[in-house]
Amino acid sequence: MPLPTAPRALVFDVFGTVVDWYGSIVRELNAIGWPTDAGAFALAWRAGYAPAMQEVRAGHLPWTHIDALHRRILDRLLVEHGITLEEPAAQALNLVWHRLAPWPDSAAGLWRLKGRYPVATLSNGNMSLLVDLARHAGLPWDAILSAELFGHYKPDPEVYLGAARLLGVAPGELMLVAAHPSDLDAAARCGLRTAYVTRPDEQGPGHGAPPVAVGRYDLQARDFMDLARQLGG
Amino acid sequence: MPLPTAPRALVFDVFGTVVDWYGSIVRELNAIGWPTDAGAFALAWRAGYAPAMQEVRAGHLPWTHIDALHRRILDRLLVEHGITLEEPAAQALNLVWHRLAPWPDSAAGLWRLKGRYPVATLSNGNMSLLVDLARHAGLPWDAILSAELFGHYKPDPEVYLGAARLLGVAPGELMLVAAHPSDLDAAARCGLRTAYVTRPDEQGPGHGAPPVAVGRYDLQARDFMDLARQLGG
Repeated sequence: MPLPTAPRALVFDVFGTVVDWYGSIVRELNAIGWPTDAGAFALAWRAGYAPAMQEVRAGHLPWTHIDALHRRILDRLLVEHGITLEEPAAQALNLVWHRLAPWPDSAAGLWRLKGRYPVATLSNGNMSLLVDLARHAGLPWDAILSAELFGHYKPDPEVYLGAARLLGVAPGELMLVAAHPSDLDAAARCGLRTAYVTRPDEQGPGHGAPPVAVGRYDLQARDFMDLARQLGG
Repeated sequence: MPLPTAPRALVFDVFGTVVDWYGSIVRELNAIGWPTDAGAFALAWRAGYAPAMQEVRAGHLPWTHIDALHRRILDRLLVEHGITLEEPAAQALNLVWHRLAPWPDSAAGLWRLKGRYPVATLSNGNMSLLVDLARHAGLPWDAILSAELFGHYKPDPEVYLGAARLLGVAPGELMLVAAHPSDLDAAARCGLRTAYVTRPDEQGPGHGAPPVAVGRYDLQARDFMDLARQLGG
């Protein structure tokens, strides 16, 4: 079903939607000879992320950016797994989140979409992480927008509404592209348009994407090239 | 004189340093049959900018972004020049600042520098203006940073220090590239490195660039290609 009018700008969730954190972390762990199951470790590291942001949201932690939250989670997991890393190695590993690989369609799809719409990140990742990631993965963003700019993490409304304000568009003129229903639902509650992109390998090959009912979001796409076709890009 | 160590990131003033506001506005005014001297009008419009920001800085105006400040100045100048514009025409003219032309070396120079350093704007222009400008002029920024993110206009220190914080570098690891000594001096007071690029036509062909003493800034360059050569980009 075509949209009544085209959006004026697109913002993208990044971890899982644009880049493959699971595969990238597993490859890096295996490359350094990780002593435990690399896939399980990647999943546990990522699973610590939402509770860590909730500590910030609840005021138990002051504003803390994702690099620091990732490091807190990493340090806890190392203890739990009985793994010892020297400080420089722990620092280097924590920065794996700055060099995640894109999905195969991400860069080409963004280039196509960028020809018609401004494209920006809208991620809980901190600004320097997102800049490094874009340079590493060749992602041609028109702007890097991060939770860090708003002092709130998604799914807080300040992030979605703040993105619309900075891009100079009404919430209803902005479309969030994401692989996660919770993110899209929060954006929709703020009046944004929504595009669900399935990333079935986000939690590991063959894991599968969350099923969503037809029509729950404005658009549903297999990947960014499919999204570009649907958006006329 | 080579720098002792390379900077880790570069931020750029935009109006006058990256884009030619004078030439672009004169061309647009002439194209719409402007009834008074287009060059003088462009200079007056730009000259209203620093006092307008000072009204914000002094607290006489709440935070007001540049699009709105440009419009206030435009409306005043129209009255002073006895020029009547319909509202849609005034709105369209005000957006000329979103479609300024780059200097001939800007895009190519930024592509070269980007190969070695993250490159970001650091402008008093609002985010949506800078995004439009980058798309219009083909400028491959890694990030758009604006006074709007900090609620302070340059030369307030919050802008320079905020840029370093968001880019994840120390102030001394960040270099400001600008055509304006006042901007560079303020950055230097915050501990940033400085590169002065001469833009002799900024205020009109043949106007000339402000002379600065050798050694006043870390680098002095004729244009962005010269800067890239000096920075090993």
